[in-house]
Parts: sequence; structure tokens; C-alpha cells
Amino acid sequence: MNKEAIASWFQDLQDRICSALEVADGEGQFLEDQWQRPGGGGGRTRVISGRHIEKGGVNFSAVHGELSDQAAKALHLGKGGPFFATGVSIVLHPRNPLAPIIHMNVRYFEMDEEHWWFGGGIDLTPHYVDAADARWFHEQLKGTCDSFDEGYYPRFKEWADEYFYVRHRQETRGVGGIFFDRLGPQEPLDKEQLWAFVQAVGECFAPTYVALLEKNKEKAFEESQEAWQSLRRGRYVEFNLVWDRGTKFGLETNGRTESILMSLPPIASWEYDHQVQEDSAEAFTLAHLKKGIDWVNYATHTES
Amino acid sequence: MNKEAIASWFQDLQDRICSALEVADGEGQFLEDQWQRPGGGGGRTRVISGRHIEKGGVNFSAVHGELSDQAAKALHLGKGGPFFATGVSIVLHPRNPLAPIIHMNVRYFEMDEEHWWFGGGIDLTPHYVDAADARWFHEQLKGTCDSFDEGYYPRFKEWADEYFYVRHRQETRGVGGIFFDRLGPQEPLDKEQLWAFVQAVGECFAPTYVALLEKNKEKAFEESQEAWQSLRRGRYVEFNLVWDRGTKFGLETNGRTESILMSLPPIASWEYDHQVQEDSAEAFTLAHLKKGIDWVNYATHTES
Repeated sequence: MNKEAIASWFQDLQDRICSALEVADGEGQFLEDQWQRPGGGGGRTRVISGRHIEKGGVNFSAVHGELSDQAAKALHLGKGGPFFATGVSIVLHPRNPLAPIIHMNVRYFEMDEEHWWFGGGIDLTPHYVDAADARWFHEQLKGTCDSFDEGYYPRFKEWADEYFYVRHRQETRGVGGIFFDRLGPQEPLDKEQLWAFVQAVGECFAPTYVALLEKNKEKAFEESQEAWQSLRRGRYVEFNLVWDRGTKFGLETNGRTESILMSLPPIASWEYDHQVQEDSAEAFTLAHLKKGIDWVNYATHTES
Repeated sequence: MNKEAIASWFQDLQDRICSALEVADGEGQFLEDQWQRPGGGGGRTRVISGRHIEKGGVNFSAVHGELSDQAAKALHLGKGGPFFATGVSIVLHPRNPLAPIIHMNVRYFEMDEEHWWFGGGIDLTPHYVDAADARWFHEQLKGTCDSFDEGYYPRFKEWADEYFYVRHRQETRGVGGIFFDRLGPQEPLDKEQLWAFVQAVGECFAPTYVALLEKNKEKAFEESQEAWQSLRRGRYVEFNLVWDRGTKFGLETNGRTESILMSLPPIASWEYDHQVQEDSAEAFTLAHLKKGIDWVNYATHTES
């Protein structure tokens, strides 16, 4: 496959994911903004404000141009030159506090025959951690990974724990998932196989999230749970603006701000030194925002 | 004056500002958290959630310890050694969208007789720019500066425009104010004079903000104005988490997170690609979030 074929598949993935999400939402429809990048290429940013998905964005882009020597250095590449980058990036903020926030990204970068890589991942940020949901979510990711390389899930699960870490809070953003970057020629799998893996990750997103949304979207909730959701969304903002390397890189290199920040929640709140009640669902959540939890083997008696 | 006297004056300033703000609010009372820094020193974080000040923090700290060679390098100091740092830092988010957010900071840093400096500033972030208020605010700052050095106001006003710039939005955080840093032995004014200047900045904070709050706190407002306030608070979050060097430094060096992030608003919102109506108060605001506006000479026919 060449870079055009990859971009074209990503574009089609965006279409299919948007359709699946519109069906799951039942009311909301995506609005599309097509944009051009002055240096070359462009994208299609799609946003939804629906009944169950309060604020969501599904972005496709395929950009190209000249990478400066300085930018190449920052990417640990020898020298600059023409580059091509394409990907799909998603963040969904559900209305129901009992449904989780999700993030997905699949991407491809290429300079020449020797310098190319895939990256991506899926991670889940429940406002309220439900152990059965978290286990089921990780099982889906493990299943997707295992068909390609049994080492992938443990390796990429740990990578997600490290990447989605809110250092100043000493907590993970959510229950993690998988994260991988710069899977290129040095990998045991060849390019065809890596591409098939990235496609599988992209394919697994919609059914996985739709199932979690279906399970939780109609649950009754209280005002206090909405207030907690708003505080957790505040932490999501903190991670994205302070620590997320993708967001920082985008904002610092004059990327398209509205497409980058479509990941932010519709509303978020901050309270000085908020404390949770002992033995509450909120306390359970905080106790599970830790690195290294073995979710696929997590013992739970809750129905899933 | 020695460092203990400076810290003691700052602590007293915190007390007097808190009293003035409680009177202006009429209902809210500050709650205090005293904290110790493991490496030496500590602080008093005070927060208020009142009738007119929806969320505010007034923090005093005086910390000391050993500066590593690496940290010294980051501060452009030759080598590490014992250090002392003290200051007062304030952010107030008013409930009324027609009243402005304000930030103030005065601080002192010392390593030895040759290596010390003062820093600080006051800047105003109206949700709705009112030209008369902005002009009056800048007049207060200019008056404070001019008694010490007629070059200060233009120099520190420009510094604020540069510092409080939200690069990824290409807009200033608000209507600016004054900002200064590392005023040390190389300045024409001697240490006594610099200290008197910093004290004057600290003294001018409470009467200036109280006047702006009094003028606007009881004004009637609509839901649409509250929605705009929430979006502008989102921009405040973006500046503080993405660009503010003080916040970044604090979060990256394991500072006290709750004291650092007390600057964040009670609630904030994000909307994809929000557009304002032509000739609206919101459009006027955006048009005035620019560097280099000469506020003290701004022609206005509005009563102030």
C-alpha cells in the first residue's frame, strides 16, 4: 500500500465511524468543516452535539510539505525534507456521567522508503470507573492486538499507562487502553502487517464504544453525578493542555486550533481541593486511576 | 530590608487584601489552608466562594531550600545553592459576566547579596471589554508606576502584552496591565526603591479591583452573557495551562497543585469554532484583545 491508499482508507474510516455514531446517538448529526493547510494538504473536521454524545469530534487530515531540519531533529530524524502525514483522531464526551469519554487516534507518517511509521491508540476515561466495563474494554483491545502479536497488548497497554498520566495529579487520565507510536521498519512485523494492525485498531473503535454507550446512555443519574462529571472533565482539560504531546505540538507549531481543541469538553469545572466521600463511587474511581492495573484479569462480580 | 521583612510584609498584604475583598463581596469568607513544603517553608492558601466573587484565591508563600545546578541553569544563574522565594498571588473570577477577572502577583527571589530580584504585575481580563473601565484600570497602574520611574509603565505594559498572549488564538488574555520580572541589581533603581515600587503595586490592587467590582457587580445580565463568560473562562484556562510560565514551572517541578490551579475558573466551556455576531459587544471584545492598544489615551465617551 502507498500513502494515498492509507489516507483514502482513513477517510473512509472517518465516514463509517461517523455513521455508526449518528445511529448510536439517535438524534445528533455531524457537521463538517473542510480546511486547507497553507503548507499543503488539509482535512475534514466533523463535530457532533447530539442527544447522548454531548460534544464529539471526528477529525481526518492528510497533510504534506517540507519538514525543516529543526522539526526533523525534534522528531529524531537526521535531516529535513518532504513529509506526508495522515490520520483520524476522535474524542467523544457523552452527556450521561455514567458513560465514559473515549479517545482514538490512528496515524501514518512518511518521509521516504526508510523513514515512515504508524502510531495510534484507544483509551477510555470513565467519569465513574466501572470495573466490568473497564475489563470488557481491555478485552476488546487485547483481542485486537493478539491476532497480530501477543506482545502488543502488554507493550501498548503499559505505553498508554505512561502516556495518559496526569503527573501533577499523580493519577492516570482514565482506565487507559493502548498507545503506540513510531512503529516502523525496525519492527518485527513488516509494513503490510503493521498497516493491517492499525486498520484493526480503527475498526474496533466504533463497535467497542457504541456498546459502552448503549449500556450506559439511558441510565438515570443525579445532579451530584453531573457535578462530578464536570470535575472529571476538568482533569481531562488539564491532561490535554498540560501534558498531551500531540496537543502541545499542534498548538506550538501553529496547527489548526479548532481541530486540535475539539477534544475539550463542552463544560468543565474546578473546585479548590475537592474531597470525595469514603467508600463512594467517586472514591472507587480515584483508587482506580493508577498505572499497572491488570484490567483483563480484574476480578469483578458485576454483570457486564 | 531583609528577606524576612519582605515575606512578613507580603503576609500582611495578604491579610489586608482578603479583608477588603470580603467587605466588597458582602457574604463570602476566605477559607485558609496552611501548608508546608517538604524542602523548606510553606504557605497560606486562601479561597473564597462568595456572592460576587464566584471563585477566588489569594495565596501567600515563603519557601526556601537548595536550588539544584540544573534549576539554576534554567533560571540563567551560574550555579545552584540555597534560595529563598516569597510572594502573593491572586486570581478572582467574579460571578457577574460584566465584571472582569483579575490577576495579581508580587514576588521576591534571593540567592545571595548579588543574586536577587523582584517580579510581579496586575492584569485584567474582562469577559466584556468596557473601554472606559480598561482606560481607568490602566490609569491606576500608570499612576503607580510613574511615581517611581516614568519608563516603567510603558515598559511593563508592553511586557504584559507579550506575556499574557494566547498564541494559538492570536489574542491577548484580556486588556493587559503591567508585568515585570527579575528587577535586580542591574536596575537603575536601588533595592529600597524597587521594594517600595513592588509594595505600591501590591497596595494598588485592592482599591482598583474593588472599584471595578462595585461598578459592575449588580448589573443585570442575560443567559447569553453567562454563556459568553463561560467561553471566555475557557480561554483563561487555555492560557494558564498552555502558556503561563509560572503555572507550567509549578506543575513540572512538583509544586503544590491545588495552590497553583486555584487560578482556574469555577466553570468553563468550549464550543467548536464559536462565532460572534457582527457589531455585538462580543465582537467589540474580540477586536480589543490585541497587543499594543494605548488604553490610557483611548478615546471613550462612556461614563467611567
